[in-house]
Amino acid sequence: MNTLRSFRLLGLLALPLLGTLAGRAEDGYRLWLRYDRITTEAQRTAYVRALDQIVLVTPTGAESPTLVAARDELHTGLAGLLGGEVPVTIVKSIDRIPEMGDGFVLISTRLNHVGEVRITAGHDAGVLYGAFDLLRRIQTRQSLDRLEVTSLPKVKRRVLDHWDNLTRTIERGYAGFSLWNWFALPDYLDPRYTDYARACASIGLNGACLTNVNANATVLTEEYLVKVAALAGVFRPYGIRVYLTARFSAPKEIGGLPTADPLDPAVQAWWKAKVDEIYRLVPDFGGFLVKANSEGQPGPQDYRRTHADGANTLADALAPHGGVVMWRAFVYSNEAPDDRAKQAFNEFTPLDGKFRANVFVQAKNGPIDFMPREPFHPLFGAMPHTPIALELQLTQEYLGGSTQLAFLAPMWKEVLDSDTFAAGAGSTVARVIDGSVDLHPDSAIAGVANTGTDRNWTGHPLAAANWYAFGRLAWDHSLSSDAIADEWTRMTFGNDPALVPPVVAMLLRSREAVVNYSMPLGLHHLMAEGHHYGPGPWVDKLARADWTATYYHHAATDGLGFNRSASGTNAVGQYRPEVARVFGDVAQCPESLLLWFHHVPWDHAMKSGHTLWDELCARYQAGVDEVRAWQKSWQSLEGHIDPERHRHVAALLQRQERDARFWRDGCLLYFQQFSKRPLPVGVEPADHPLEYYLKFQLHYVPGHPAEMK
Amino acid sequence: MNTLRSFRLLGLLALPLLGTLAGRAEDGYRLWLRYDRITTEAQRTAYVRALDQIVLVTPTGAESPTLVAARDELHTGLAGLLGGEVPVTIVKSIDRIPEMGDGFVLISTRLNHVGEVRITAGHDAGVLYGAFDLLRRIQTRQSLDRLEVTSLPKVKRRVLDHWDNLTRTIERGYAGFSLWNWFALPDYLDPRYTDYARACASIGLNGACLTNVNANATVLTEEYLVKVAALAGVFRPYGIRVYLTARFSAPKEIGGLPTADPLDPAVQAWWKAKVDEIYRLVPDFGGFLVKANSEGQPGPQDYRRTHADGANTLADALAPHGGVVMWRAFVYSNEAPDDRAKQAFNEFTPLDGKFRANVFVQAKNGPIDFMPREPFHPLFGAMPHTPIALELQLTQEYLGGSTQLAFLAPMWKEVLDSDTFAAGAGSTVARVIDGSVDLHPDSAIAGVANTGTDRNWTGHPLAAANWYAFGRLAWDHSLSSDAIADEWTRMTFGNDPALVPPVVAMLLRSREAVVNYSMPLGLHHLMAEGHHYGPGPWVDKLARADWTATYYHHAATDGLGFNRSASGTNAVGQYRPEVARVFGDVAQCPESLLLWFHHVPWDHAMKSGHTLWDELCARYQAGVDEVRAWQKSWQSLEGHIDPERHRHVAALLQRQERDARFWRDGCLLYFQQFSKRPLPVGVEPADHPLEYYLKFQLHYVPGHPAEMK
Repeated sequence: MNTLRSFRLLGLLALPLLGTLAGRAEDGYRLWLRYDRITTEAQRTAYVRALDQIVLVTPTGAESPTLVAARDELHTGLAGLLGGEVPVTIVKSIDRIPEMGDGFVLISTRLNHVGEVRITAGHDAGVLYGAFDLLRRIQTRQSLDRLEVTSLPKVKRRVLDHWDNLTRTIERGYAGFSLWNWFALPDYLDPRYTDYARACASIGLNGACLTNVNANATVLTEEYLVKVAALAGVFRPYGIRVYLTARFSAPKEIGGLPTADPLDPAVQAWWKAKVDEIYRLVPDFGGFLVKANSEGQPGPQDYRRTHADGANTLADALAPHGGVVMWRAFVYSNEAPDDRAKQAFNEFTPLDGKFRANVFVQAKNGPIDFMPREPFHPLFGAMPHTPIALELQLTQEYLGGSTQLAFLAPMWKEVLDSDTFAAGAGSTVARVIDGSVDLHPDSAIAGVANTGTDRNWTGHPLAAANWYAFGRLAWDHSLSSDAIADEWTRMTFGNDPALVPPVVAMLLRSREAVVNYSMPLGLHHLMAEGHHYGPGPWVDKLARADWTATYYHHAATDGLGFNRSASGTNAVGQYRPEVARVFGDVAQCPESLLLWFHHVPWDHAMKSGHTLWDELCARYQAGVDEVRAWQKSWQSLEGHIDPERHRHVAALLQRQERDARFWRDGCLLYFQQFSKRPLPVGVEPADHPLEYYLKFQLHYVPGHPAEMK
Repeated sequence: MNTLRSFRLLGLLALPLLGTLAGRAEDGYRLWLRYDRITTEAQRTAYVRALDQIVLVTPTGAESPTLVAARDELHTGLAGLLGGEVPVTIVKSIDRIPEMGDGFVLISTRLNHVGEVRITAGHDAGVLYGAFDLLRRIQTRQSLDRLEVTSLPKVKRRVLDHWDNLTRTIERGYAGFSLWNWFALPDYLDPRYTDYARACASIGLNGACLTNVNANATVLTEEYLVKVAALAGVFRPYGIRVYLTARFSAPKEIGGLPTADPLDPAVQAWWKAKVDEIYRLVPDFGGFLVKANSEGQPGPQDYRRTHADGANTLADALAPHGGVVMWRAFVYSNEAPDDRAKQAFNEFTPLDGKFRANVFVQAKNGPIDFMPREPFHPLFGAMPHTPIALELQLTQEYLGGSTQLAFLAPMWKEVLDSDTFAAGAGSTVARVIDGSVDLHPDSAIAGVANTGTDRNWTGHPLAAANWYAFGRLAWDHSLSSDAIADEWTRMTFGNDPALVPPVVAMLLRSREAVVNYSMPLGLHHLMAEGHHYGPGPWVDKLARADWTATYYHHAATDGLGFNRSASGTNAVGQYRPEVARVFGDVAQCPESLLLWFHHVPWDHAMKSGHTLWDELCARYQAGVDEVRAWQKSWQSLEGHIDPERHRHVAALLQRQERDARFWRDGCLLYFQQFSKRPLPVGVEPADHPLEYYLKFQLHYVPGHPAEMK
């Protein structure tokens, strides 16, 4: 037909020519749950042959919402990956399934030419985790031949802590705003809530604390609890239990009581009634997370009661329902003259044994506050009668928000693998946390979430790796950073062999690069005031000395660093002798923590042979150089990564290179005032004089509580 | 092959089984720019035959970014709609193209069996508008046979005003947070910026004021201007010029001057230098929008200068670059004892003729503040020497945020079609605005945007109709609400004949329903304090009397309503006699505005034969009943609308029904204290006693400035 002669039919691939209004671009929304068809036919056929059928085995064999979710996920995932339908059947186990918590067993067989994968678990959530495990194996192109895998989570409560306000701002949130649209709840259930739960379940997370630790009692009112219940209803099929932060003064603020004294019977009755109300609405409610008498938050000490008194009152209300209290150990007093790094230990260790059985004391990985590098917190292993929960921070409060690449698995592994010697050698932080050192029946790990309303969930396209890594390590702290980075990269960007190694290499080197260009050699708390983005070693006059930078770095003409050895604040004395001996000795102390524990002369000889000053300069420069290397590496991946995510990361790396230079230059110019030494060869001079960095001010940095209005 | 026997191939349609992580759901992101394939083969073939080629004709014929955008849009759109590629060529006109501003000519021909559409325009943006017009015709299934269309915009500046803060909160924003990710700018250009510009261009908008009228001077610093420039660069190919709000005290706050007196030479020099700086970065900058001496904002009156003095200082700085000032007339004084509705007129009419040629006075549609219904603003037609810009509000500050359905085209048409009689009969507000009454060479219309980071842009899936309608009416105010609703529905949900009429009917009846259940018969300003969501006729003690409800409704045992007739505040006297005569006479005044202009006894006989009280009750009930009718109608559309958007609207209608009852019950119980009359038959009794409504308090309602923290 003549009239059709110029009309050429297009393949599907040619459609998304511009923008994303077509809604089909790779915008990162799918995270690591991408189920694109396997393009290598031999691989695809091998999986098809292995998957004639999938059998989900539970003690009940009932078609629960969780098993339906597992089956739907398998259908969707395998339809995408393999291009066809695999029958999934749910059956009741004929044998007794051994007690294995959230764990599962994955077995593949081939009998009479029928390939079968069988997922067996003691309860439905375990099957769901097994389903995601199976999909992950296919997504990362692992063989399914003769699988016989038993996977048991090492930690029981694997929780994301959201520092989300009811206004939807997020304290230290860098990926937009809170996912919880409180005003639209309970009527409208955004499909994104389901996808959040799927993503969490896919990496084994089983809890979400919805609200900021700087808490607002309003979330405990009936107006909000029905909204909480609606969210909990969406999460339930995915095995995610909801937790809330409890503002300690809630009995006064929303209860109308004259006091919040935890030993006052009316206060105790109020909490009991409130908790009963919560469980009527949310029968599987997880419990309360509490920040008390910390940075201005109310707490039991307002009534001369101890942290144990406070925690126990809440714990008693929760106990009949099986709920727990996560009581944060992040406390330090403005009045206390002692080293801030020592205060939590001093305050909490005397309370060991005084907490109810359903109370966790939740400590951050290090004794200060999520610095790019800290030694492990001395509380780990120091409270044998109390289960200690580990709090990690996925959101990069001190590592560049969602602007800078910093894959945190290596940082978390560093603390998890640290040996506390609490019960002899091998008493790693990981084993303290999972309860195996002190034989606690319950265990918990929490990660401060880096999620938000940004379409790709975490702002930086590569920051989702931290969400992923947290879940994987919470499930199994023995996994290596390399293995996690490799999995995540394959699932997120594909299995292209030209792509996987360079991306994994970037991820694995990134945290150390941030340490180097911001706070190398054990330096800490050097950041700009308030928003914490960029350098501020000169910050010295704030409401509290322990919020300044000079409190921590002690830069002077005689040297640099905080003497926490026996001749200083003796913070090392809070560790077991085996550890204290190493940290406390300038010769044995790892150089990565040197200035954390020691005040060291500028000419101190480092292992490299450099002086401290030259080594410091070299580290700052190395951080910058590393980012430049990623830029080159990333550029070479053009064509191997979809344009939208490639452009996004390229833009952020450009910014990170600028930020890294800014850190290097601001810090070195500042310290040079004390070292009075020239920059060594190979270290680039600053772009501006010191004055420029001192005066520089950013406005409206995301996540900064004071500017959230 | 035996091993493949249970493996069934799936069609593409079976893929998105759950959630939206697949990223393929109908989430509303594509707005009305959906280019799904035409499924009726005869229709598709007809378009294919008509479109052997498309020719874009401009005076230059150069392949500018705007023409490339037009061509790309045609390629994408037609590939989607028709499933194939249509050649698009760009040619230089051989004839002189007549002056037609942003207008275009669309001509279809069929010669020698070749179907061709030719889009001709005087500059490139006109071609882009023509391209979208062509796509709209196909999306709405109109014939392309023998087209000969000339389309000229009636108003020159068609601007969206974003009340967005630099923290990304939005004052009166109900669809998430600001689209402008200031912190990530200028490095990262979110593809959503491009889609925003495409959506705006597709309905003929050509300006965007990026920042809140309650302005922050920081946006005028270099730190932010480079970010503004980056956004402007994304918008430019789509013909969108950027405007900013100018905080009048900026010379003091960021300029370091001791004063912001507009007649101070140093202040004038500062503005001149600042504007020069802006134009170096943004050569096509549109100009400033200013809220001055209004609700606490700084302004020229702080220095005993007039609004004209203030506007002219900015105008003089902008004039050399072709920029304009939009100076808002939304002023009312706390001290002034006069009716708030009269104050803008009183303050501005004496200044007519005193503004520079590049100043617009921008007035809201009515004299109070975007109420569900107001009479037209008396300033329209009262300042013949000054171009008046019309400010409409797309974001539903007083009409239920993004929770309630209220299609606003009928409201806007009401004001546009109102006759001011300024230059005799036919001097409609529309003709005052478009410059044809007073022969102004420039003209402007602004809409306060309802966009945000919500995936579907506007929160309520049907609220995008207001964005669409604003653009269409800004281009051509003679379009009918029906036609606009019909277009939008087809483009947004498809041309299914079972779907289009019921959705259009809902849209067209929605604004009147909201009026009925919230503020019927000319009642106004009855809303709850601060957040403006829900009823507050009892609000009577605030910092300012003119922020209370009792100031406006005058409910008393003798009747209801604000006497603005000659026997009252004589606000009617600000209108031309032809208008004043009607509004001022209780017998002639439209009942829809009765209580706006008159204080009327409870037993006043209405046209229906009811007393005022019975009519008032009936209106409130009718509003509730209407929402219930939509619920039924919407339910019947299941299967005709994709599940995701269907569920979303259903959830919101459920909420709207509850809200409508809440409005009805709160207001009627309150007014009943004065009317002392029973509810008439057919009006449902309230769910709670009055006390409940008086005490009811919502927390953290979106868009409420005081709670944005």
